[in-house]
Amino acid sequence: MPKVDICFSPELLHLYDLRGKVAVIVDILRASSTIVTALGEGVTHVFPVATLDECTAYGQEHGCLTAAERDGLPAAGFDLGNSPFGFLDARRPVQGRALSISTTNGTMALRRSLAADAVVVGSFLNLAAVADFVRAQGRDVLVVCAGWKGQFCLEDTVFGGALAARLTPDFDVRSSDATLAALHLWQQGEPNLSNYLLQSAHVRRLNSLEASKDFEFCLQIDAYAQVLPRWQHDRLINNG
Amino acid sequence: MPKVDICFSPELLHLYDLRGKVAVIVDILRASSTIVTALGEGVTHVFPVATLDECTAYGQEHGCLTAAERDGLPAAGFDLGNSPFGFLDARRPVQGRALSISTTNGTMALRRSLAADAVVVGSFLNLAAVADFVRAQGRDVLVVCAGWKGQFCLEDTVFGGALAARLTPDFDVRSSDATLAALHLWQQGEPNLSNYLLQSAHVRRLNSLEASKDFEFCLQIDAYAQVLPRWQHDRLINNG
Repeated sequence: MPKVDICFSPELLHLYDLRGKVAVIVDILRASSTIVTALGEGVTHVFPVATLDECTAYGQEHGCLTAAERDGLPAAGFDLGNSPFGFLDARRPVQGRALSISTTNGTMALRRSLAADAVVVGSFLNLAAVADFVRAQGRDVLVVCAGWKGQFCLEDTVFGGALAARLTPDFDVRSSDATLAALHLWQQGEPNLSNYLLQSAHVRRLNSLEASKDFEFCLQIDAYAQVLPRWQHDRLINNG
Repeated sequence: MPKVDICFSPELLHLYDLRGKVAVIVDILRASSTIVTALGEGVTHVFPVATLDECTAYGQEHGCLTAAERDGLPAAGFDLGNSPFGFLDARRPVQGRALSISTTNGTMALRRSLAADAVVVGSFLNLAAVADFVRAQGRDVLVVCAGWKGQFCLEDTVFGGALAARLTPDFDVRSSDATLAALHLWQQGEPNLSNYLLQSAHVRRLNSLEASKDFEFCLQIDAYAQVLPRWQHDRLINNG
């Protein structure tokens, strides 16, 4: 029976052997939710990059939209910030455009996971697509939490628990303590996910009105149930 | 208000600044529980070492008892294994003796934490002593989970939650997602701690009859409520 494991931080990835596995990269607030939204709203492909300079360079080289934030705020000189709502603004249609997006934690998690057989991006918005894909692959899966500056992050972990719950009973969710803990936290949080995650230190750091809208948006389970950002060569495309 | 934070693995310790803090080293199964038991039963001081060779060398140099295990079993050529029951055997009194104990995960966690102002060893057996000490110090505390080969471990984390619960409301337990998660897991597990932790992958690895006795022993809350192993220069002594 294939296993579900969860890596709580990119800083722990060296302890895992990714070969032959599916890696699910998670950065609920907000990179992975924003990437899912972008592809769901018709963006053709996404280049996740670590730095603002790379973001600009990709934008110029590939003629794509650029999205960047620093410390939770939109960075100056880019088309968009890191909010999913940027892709839902009728005044700036995104359909058919490519996107370069700067996200420190998420990009690090993704780049360190490329030894996996398949690398996809997960969020509550596309939980069903991720679960369907993993189930169809039938291989061990490692959920890679982007975390917050390398540290454990509640919302990414709870997503891991939600995925493990969807994969039960066809996958082994009991051979890893990390998966067990994530499942417990998901079971606790599920009845009122928003209230549960509002406790999160990370969520409380994002305490502006705009961030609060983003937060509620990112918790909508299966709002983009057909979107599966999958890594191909040098970019994420929708494999859903 | 001083803060409670929890580091889930020695592999994440570089992300934390230990200066000015109290570090609580935890390896519930079984190093920290065994060290507490040893000091509780009259051992004068403990040298935690990483390797079997070091354990032998300390034994010869300091004329102390030696305790070592490999893969959960007592290692050949040592006085004791890593079971707390070794210190409760009337046929081999330990009172007044020093001890050298080999523990890979626990020693690594301890050695990487020496930048802290005070380093103590925590277990369910001495939860009250740890809580009292931390409260008296009134400084930020970092619970350092030894984990399992660098990975997240349920029983160490749940101990962190139990300590955070004891320090509430005088300490801030909400500014770290790791602490929040540990508190949630403790609250879930507390009504039947043994059953809860029996799910743990690590616990299931220790599935011999002897290990099962050890497991139940290590979950006795405050059985050694006056024992506080504290690092002094090169050894752990009872500061309780």
